[in-house]
Amino acid sequence: MTSGLFVAATPSTSAAMTMAEFLLTLIAIFAAAKLCGELAERIGQPAVLGEMIGGLIIGVSGLHLIDPHQPTVHLLSELGVVLLLFLIGLETDVHKLLSVGGQSAAVAVAGVVLPFAGGYAAGYFLDFPHVVAVFLGASLTATSVGITARVLSDLGHLQDRESQIVLGAAVVDDIIGLVILTVVGGMARGESISVGGIARISAIAFGFVVAAIIIGSLLAPMLIRVIAKLRVAKAIFFASVMFAFALAFLADRLGSGMIIGAFAAGLVLTRTERGRQIEHEVHDIAQFFIPIFFVTVGAAIDLSSINPFAADTRRFFIIGCVLTVIAIIGKYLSSAVVFGKGLRRSVIGVGMVPRGEVGLIFAQVGLSAGLLSAGLYSSVALMVIVTTFITPPLLRKLLEPRPVDDHRKPGTYAMDAFEDA
Amino acid sequence: MTSGLFVAATPSTSAAMTMAEFLLTLIAIFAAAKLCGELAERIGQPAVLGEMIGGLIIGVSGLHLIDPHQPTVHLLSELGVVLLLFLIGLETDVHKLLSVGGQSAAVAVAGVVLPFAGGYAAGYFLDFPHVVAVFLGASLTATSVGITARVLSDLGHLQDRESQIVLGAAVVDDIIGLVILTVVGGMARGESISVGGIARISAIAFGFVVAAIIIGSLLAPMLIRVIAKLRVAKAIFFASVMFAFALAFLADRLGSGMIIGAFAAGLVLTRTERGRQIEHEVHDIAQFFIPIFFVTVGAAIDLSSINPFAADTRRFFIIGCVLTVIAIIGKYLSSAVVFGKGLRRSVIGVGMVPRGEVGLIFAQVGLSAGLLSAGLYSSVALMVIVTTFITPPLLRKLLEPRPVDDHRKPGTYAMDAFEDA
Repeated sequence: MTSGLFVAATPSTSAAMTMAEFLLTLIAIFAAAKLCGELAERIGQPAVLGEMIGGLIIGVSGLHLIDPHQPTVHLLSELGVVLLLFLIGLETDVHKLLSVGGQSAAVAVAGVVLPFAGGYAAGYFLDFPHVVAVFLGASLTATSVGITARVLSDLGHLQDRESQIVLGAAVVDDIIGLVILTVVGGMARGESISVGGIARISAIAFGFVVAAIIIGSLLAPMLIRVIAKLRVAKAIFFASVMFAFALAFLADRLGSGMIIGAFAAGLVLTRTERGRQIEHEVHDIAQFFIPIFFVTVGAAIDLSSINPFAADTRRFFIIGCVLTVIAIIGKYLSSAVVFGKGLRRSVIGVGMVPRGEVGLIFAQVGLSAGLLSAGLYSSVALMVIVTTFITPPLLRKLLEPRPVDDHRKPGTYAMDAFEDA
Repeated sequence: MTSGLFVAATPSTSAAMTMAEFLLTLIAIFAAAKLCGELAERIGQPAVLGEMIGGLIIGVSGLHLIDPHQPTVHLLSELGVVLLLFLIGLETDVHKLLSVGGQSAAVAVAGVVLPFAGGYAAGYFLDFPHVVAVFLGASLTATSVGITARVLSDLGHLQDRESQIVLGAAVVDDIIGLVILTVVGGMARGESISVGGIARISAIAFGFVVAAIIIGSLLAPMLIRVIAKLRVAKAIFFASVMFAFALAFLADRLGSGMIIGAFAAGLVLTRTERGRQIEHEVHDIAQFFIPIFFVTVGAAIDLSSINPFAADTRRFFIIGCVLTVIAIIGKYLSSAVVFGKGLRRSVIGVGMVPRGEVGLIFAQVGLSAGLLSAGLYSSVALMVIVTTFITPPLLRKLLEPRPVDDHRKPGTYAMDAFEDA
């Protein structure tokens, strides 16, 4: 499970923590997130880059202060990314998103086809079996919407037209990625794959988002009106969070991804009359959990498994470098399909680059199925790390930071804006 | 571990949850807390009573929707009570607390001596061995500061002089309780107890709080001034939370209780120049975790182990009733030692009644050591349940609810006060 460079997608079976250990873990995570986030901001980089590096320092490649595989840490980290996508959904204008829908779909498809072809070709030329080459290609297709959205949000550019295209494409990409995962997962188990089967899996994945948004948009305003009459503390907030968790759960059960469900919940609720209140209150809570996600992303990295100076890991380091180049070029070229004047294609191309944890889930399935060796798993993880870590500074180079309304920015909190009540 | 009526104080070794199960658990907890909290408020009761009853409904005596022994649920629930005491500390005026210090100490000592004597006598007359009688007495001594503080806060009476006396007495009581626990824990292991040993344990427990407040008060203002210069998101909030977690951890390691450490952190930080900002931001986050604590308190109750209609549990039901009467009368009478005019002794007496989880920790130690049978453990748990559940409605009868500033009230959130930005 934990062989390879990165965190296993599933938690290990380590024993339960004591409360004292839990408190120390939270202290270590928050200290790493905030100290390194501060340093990143001081040198003009997004805070999220600092949080991941902070994780690298306190994690399995560094001081071993936290165990990202510990079940509770893993669950809180997942809760962080669910709340992040819920918040990003709440900050997204559905009409704006739909107005760039064609562009997003085109970028998403190009961003899947090009890296997949490149990864498959690499596997083919390196003389790996057909199924292994498919796995390598598939692991290059995902886009981590969380990382790009967080950076765009940190820099105050989430409402740009390019950002909306990237956001839409990343969501479509995640859905395509889940379809591919289901298909290659079947291949890994030796199942035969039919065109009809693929069509059915795709219909469920895309149908969920469309259905969630349509049904949710009909029901949510009524529910909000009922809940607004309750006297109990923060009724609207808790109802919204339960709605997001329920959609995330349903999305998971129906073969889509949890973060897709949470994002859809945000899209639905932001259009209700309490949309701004919900965004404001979710923002406050999400702040607590989001750093846990980004720190554990860094903490789970085991750099020793791709040491280029050790004979037994050098080969996988080189394969990882090849995959990284294909991953970056493949996604960057996907922006070429964008039409329309005045759009900065480079922003879109770079925004599609980070793979985040989604690419690892592919590699994990291949590792569990025995198709990827621990070494190849590390090669994929190297690709994920590099694409994830280079995106924040590259986007920062392309986009001038813009002052933003505090409650639209997950990464920062203007201290001076606070009114001493 | 889980024999008896109530949750074991330590988590069970159940397997790790999946993320989907975690989301369902959170949905169930929040739904139970908010629906039953709403009903409680509608019939004029504090929301916290509804939260505990909601837990009873979804827990091991009801629908089995959540497992309060699950390690992650247990940790989040503990985090809830740590944050609650941190928040109560932030809402407490140290000078006010010290001005009633003598009264608090007197109430605390009386509130330990009377129930202990009563419990020991009951054990003696029921022909239990000496050590068992000591355990029964000890399990009656604790006061759950969390429950009373939450109710007083819900009702807007936290700043009353009576409330401050109860709060101070409950804190002193918790510290005395920890000393007793250390001593009887030693007796359970067959160690001999010296007066010098008891004095040393007491000095550590009380010394920690005094030292934390003195040293903290010297350091905190400087730290706050440095941290206020940081640019990163919510630096003051995270620094404060880390400070509270660190004091909670230290208190635990030095033989005091985590909630005492968190409370001391609140007392220290509320006096800094950023006190109101910290209180405001901690309030927002604590709202998410506090209901998890109160719902799991209810969820862990197993009513079947004190069924008065079954022959094998009837005897322990009756013993439980006897302990309950002693527990209530003993704490209620402790208010008689209060001097000063115009104080409502009944508020103080009732405020001291709830035992919460602290009494169970005693029983748990006795159970683990083999001194208390599973049946006697259930009797103690019945006493804990009754004293915990009757306090909110009794206090509500004695105190007229008072409108409170939103951010001073953990239980409610005035929706209309929200400015749609």
